[in-house]
Amino acid sequence: MSLPNLTLTALPGLPMVQVGDDLPALIAASASAAGITFTPRDVLVVTSKIVSKAEDRWVALVDIMPSDEAWRLAKITGKDPQLVELVLRECTAVSRAAPGVLVVRHRLGFISANAGIDQSNVEGGDAGALLLPRDPDASARRLRDGMKARTGVDIGIVISDSHGRPFRMGNVGVAIGVAGLPALRDLRGNPDLFGRTLKITLQGYADMIASAAALVSGEGAEGLPVVLVRGLTATGDGSAADLNRPFDQDLYGG
Amino acid sequence: MSLPNLTLTALPGLPMVQVGDDLPALIAASASAAGITFTPRDVLVVTSKIVSKAEDRWVALVDIMPSDEAWRLAKITGKDPQLVELVLRECTAVSRAAPGVLVVRHRLGFISANAGIDQSNVEGGDAGALLLPRDPDASARRLRDGMKARTGVDIGIVISDSHGRPFRMGNVGVAIGVAGLPALRDLRGNPDLFGRTLKITLQGYADMIASAAALVSGEGAEGLPVVLVRGLTATGDGSAADLNRPFDQDLYGG
Repeated sequence: MSLPNLTLTALPGLPMVQVGDDLPALIAASASAAGITFTPRDVLVVTSKIVSKAEDRWVALVDIMPSDEAWRLAKITGKDPQLVELVLRECTAVSRAAPGVLVVRHRLGFISANAGIDQSNVEGGDAGALLLPRDPDASARRLRDGMKARTGVDIGIVISDSHGRPFRMGNVGVAIGVAGLPALRDLRGNPDLFGRTLKITLQGYADMIASAAALVSGEGAEGLPVVLVRGLTATGDGSAADLNRPFDQDLYGG
Repeated sequence: MSLPNLTLTALPGLPMVQVGDDLPALIAASASAAGITFTPRDVLVVTSKIVSKAEDRWVALVDIMPSDEAWRLAKITGKDPQLVELVLRECTAVSRAAPGVLVVRHRLGFISANAGIDQSNVEGGDAGALLLPRDPDASARRLRDGMKARTGVDIGIVISDSHGRPFRMGNVGVAIGVAGLPALRDLRGNPDLFGRTLKITLQGYADMIASAAALVSGEGAEGLPVVLVRGLTATGDGSAADLNRPFDQDLYGG
């Protein structure tokens, strides 16, 4: 069918990712076993969790000494003081603290709960926590380069995470690392159906791709951390930082 | 391929929607011409714009008399006083007003810029504006019933719009009407890969579906307002209201 369409396919059979694993090798092997041949414009959405694991971003909580500020915020939020200390080390500012909630400005520039630190799906469980990749745009670039080296094809990469939202219920996918495609898509200047110029539209392009992929990858026990997206048309080479609203445009005190 | 996957296909050849048009008839005809046979679990994402057009939600600005409050906010925002008056009539509270920005709590319960009122892609251009459907959940229900009557199949419906976000750049898709699928998906209680119980995860399911569809439907001149989504697995029957964060959980003064 030549109708405009998009397909999203979870790559099968990826092993549990371990520290130091060569992700492009694992991904290329999985794709090859599934009979997938990459083509230009293909985009791979990779959950940050497996990138963090490969990059050894696991931290044992027993090694963490909470600061006074961590103890104070732990009391407000009801969270573990060592976990709060880790969050503080990953952020540049606390946005909101309330019972059960600790929202911060991550050192990467976005606002998120618990600085994206994850205790689910991590071997070791509550005894440790998994930080986000140190520089997810750079991780995406390395994945892109690694896939190019193995397949000969320039593939776009989105490193995804899941964020809550201030005014809407439920987490959605977001892009925290991008290489080989636009992160933010500028449709301003395009004519609309009646030839008027569209006034608004900046599209949170890579975030929408991350959300689409999350519909396939699921969360929890399903464990499908890499999704191939086919049919995207935008060209460019953005950065996940493009998706962070600048301070001077923040009307809500993030 | 039996890999977990999702396909999104824009329905072709839909005519410009006019007041009073029978959307299920237009959609069924388009699908039939494209050789598409619906199956249970199929979801159609329909942009609110064509629902509003069919429901005659176009308002001529010349008929609108701005209130004092509309004049005041027009001065702050630099927006047209008649448009601001329309926004005020569609909202229950003003969230933020600043140069170029008017964010309100829509009478449907969500926070959005300009109460979702649209001046792009509307015949008549600046002389009028298109309000959101009066009750998008009910519109979704009617579409679902209409498709069932024409095809014999229970199809899920998402009526989509595009929203900006407080802390991130770029609009993304959101669901403002839902029928025949969950709007918010509760994954709490599911075990993760290591058998621990997931603590967090409420998924903004219908919003993610709307974002995925927006990657195909595009905005502006492309004009592909209906997208068929195939491969979704969640069952249930939610309401777009499930996606509105309750006041008492709002930490950001929406």
